[in-house]
Amino acid sequence: MKTFHIRRPNQNIRQELINRINCLAKPKGSLGTLEELALQIGLIQQTLAPQLRNPHNIIFAADHGIANEGVSFSPKEVTWQVINNFLGGGAGINFLCRQHGFKLVLVDGGIDFDFPEGIDVLDRKIRKGTRNYLHEPALTKEEMEQAIAAGAEVVNDCHTGGCNIISFGEMGVANTSTSSMWMTFFTGIDLKECVGAGSGLDTDGIRHKYNVLKEAKDHYTGSGTAEDIITYFGGLEMLMAVGGMLKAAELGMIIIVDGFIMTNCLLAASKFHPEVLDYSIFGHCGDESGHARLLNHMGAKPLLHLGLRLGEGSGAVCSYPIIESAVRMLCEMHTFEQAAVTKYF
Amino acid sequence: MKTFHIRRPNQNIRQELINRINCLAKPKGSLGTLEELALQIGLIQQTLAPQLRNPHNIIFAADHGIANEGVSFSPKEVTWQVINNFLGGGAGINFLCRQHGFKLVLVDGGIDFDFPEGIDVLDRKIRKGTRNYLHEPALTKEEMEQAIAAGAEVVNDCHTGGCNIISFGEMGVANTSTSSMWMTFFTGIDLKECVGAGSGLDTDGIRHKYNVLKEAKDHYTGSGTAEDIITYFGGLEMLMAVGGMLKAAELGMIIIVDGFIMTNCLLAASKFHPEVLDYSIFGHCGDESGHARLLNHMGAKPLLHLGLRLGEGSGAVCSYPIIESAVRMLCEMHTFEQAAVTKYF
Repeated sequence: MKTFHIRRPNQNIRQELINRINCLAKPKGSLGTLEELALQIGLIQQTLAPQLRNPHNIIFAADHGIANEGVSFSPKEVTWQVINNFLGGGAGINFLCRQHGFKLVLVDGGIDFDFPEGIDVLDRKIRKGTRNYLHEPALTKEEMEQAIAAGAEVVNDCHTGGCNIISFGEMGVANTSTSSMWMTFFTGIDLKECVGAGSGLDTDGIRHKYNVLKEAKDHYTGSGTAEDIITYFGGLEMLMAVGGMLKAAELGMIIIVDGFIMTNCLLAASKFHPEVLDYSIFGHCGDESGHARLLNHMGAKPLLHLGLRLGEGSGAVCSYPIIESAVRMLCEMHTFEQAAVTKYF
Repeated sequence: MKTFHIRRPNQNIRQELINRINCLAKPKGSLGTLEELALQIGLIQQTLAPQLRNPHNIIFAADHGIANEGVSFSPKEVTWQVINNFLGGGAGINFLCRQHGFKLVLVDGGIDFDFPEGIDVLDRKIRKGTRNYLHEPALTKEEMEQAIAAGAEVVNDCHTGGCNIISFGEMGVANTSTSSMWMTFFTGIDLKECVGAGSGLDTDGIRHKYNVLKEAKDHYTGSGTAEDIITYFGGLEMLMAVGGMLKAAELGMIIIVDGFIMTNCLLAASKFHPEVLDYSIFGHCGDESGHARLLNHMGAKPLLHLGLRLGEGSGAVCSYPIIESAVRMLCEMHTFEQAAVTKYF
């Protein structure tokens, strides 16, 4: 697999950042999470005066062969239909991007549909959906590597355009199923604890989804390496996100992590390069069963708990103003000395 | 006490709002808290297309006689010094107001300091700090009523200026002590559970604070009515917030509730007019011991948990983008029909 050159942020500036945060005219620690974020961002950017520039939300979209097994509440055509809704500006992620000044980038990583020419979707289609991993590997090694590289390339282009903070979203009917497979293999948590309602399954639906995935898990006879897991189960949009996250970390960008699916992608990315976690901010704990468990497993404390389960990067983009507040705290607040306030700690 | 005319929002539009939210092109319920907020705001404004206009954050500031007992980590002069820092634009609340487009209004409700003429602080000083309720009632009935009326008048002026969403903050050394007294009397929760570190007390400091407040509680021989509690313990900035909240509800404005102190003010306001709660959105669960307990007692689910304990309205203002997202969801998202997406629920 493509190698990325990711380094932990240099820690030399850490104490200087802590001192600066503690000198701001407020009771020590009273800005809570904003202070933790400020430290992380200061480390990533190696400065006491960080800046957020040109935020982007990339949505990778693709179909999953496993959808043929009826594991999702949504019919498969919803994948391409929702892309059209993104293009029309009327989806959830559209108003959130407008509100928070994000550029929205749409990437077809493998949707089982032929879009007309000239629409504003990057064509990175590797194949029309993954194969059905109930019966065979979802992807070949070459397809997996192409997807990782394609995701990295999209992020590289954003960075070239001046972006230094990026979130990732996804659209792909049945991708909570694939995420559950990644989660159970990467964490060792029982599959049952990893499977949830997705876009709206009821109890019977969840049971069927679990049974299908259990069978797929039992059939799997691969090597169990991270590389093999992500190849065997796909999906293409998820691999592109993995590649995108690794590239973003290599470039020193801030990564905002969205919901269940993107958290699984970050977990996978961290299996190749653990340093990617230093660049990642967890935006939101979603409503999909398994997400809280996964975050807990990773020791992550997400910024928001709004019960979202829309995907698309919505939870990540919603958390952006908190990240901006942390940066403004560092750059705009006066110190006790500047403020002429008795230092009360 | 001044009477306010607060009505529950008319519920006739409720079903129409719910239908609208459920027709938006997303899995049903997938925007979680945003959907609940949209319903509440639609009810308050009686429309399917609500608007947020001209948000204001009012900081009421005053001193507390109980500060003489050493119950706060901050020396008393910090109250007026911090007001000066607000005026200089370098405080926490300043960058948050700039970030989120809030107008900041500063009100001297009873600071023990003579400000120079011509500064941008509304002079509503009722007296130079409350009396020390360890020994005597903090305020007279007339002073209490003046404070309620003054807070209401400030909010009325904001409303006249086009504001329809408002948050309240406070500055007043020792006001977590006064809030703890309100909390224990209004909720029946043991005083020990209501007392915390304020701006930075250590364990010994908290023990001393508790002992002082316990003695004050034991000395209290008043009637125990809400009116008597808020008069006996003060403080002036808190009473102004109570009046401000009640006036805001009367005017059909959205109230964003900040941390420990402002939650106590809302609780007090609700003792006079329970309908004020229909207009209130809980912005943040702060780090002050007792706040989570108080929110739980009120059945409140705050939008944010960022560990802030700065006061000033900071938690409320931080939550504003989430409220804005809820409004944008209602106004900007396409329905399944508009979006030409198969309705997948």
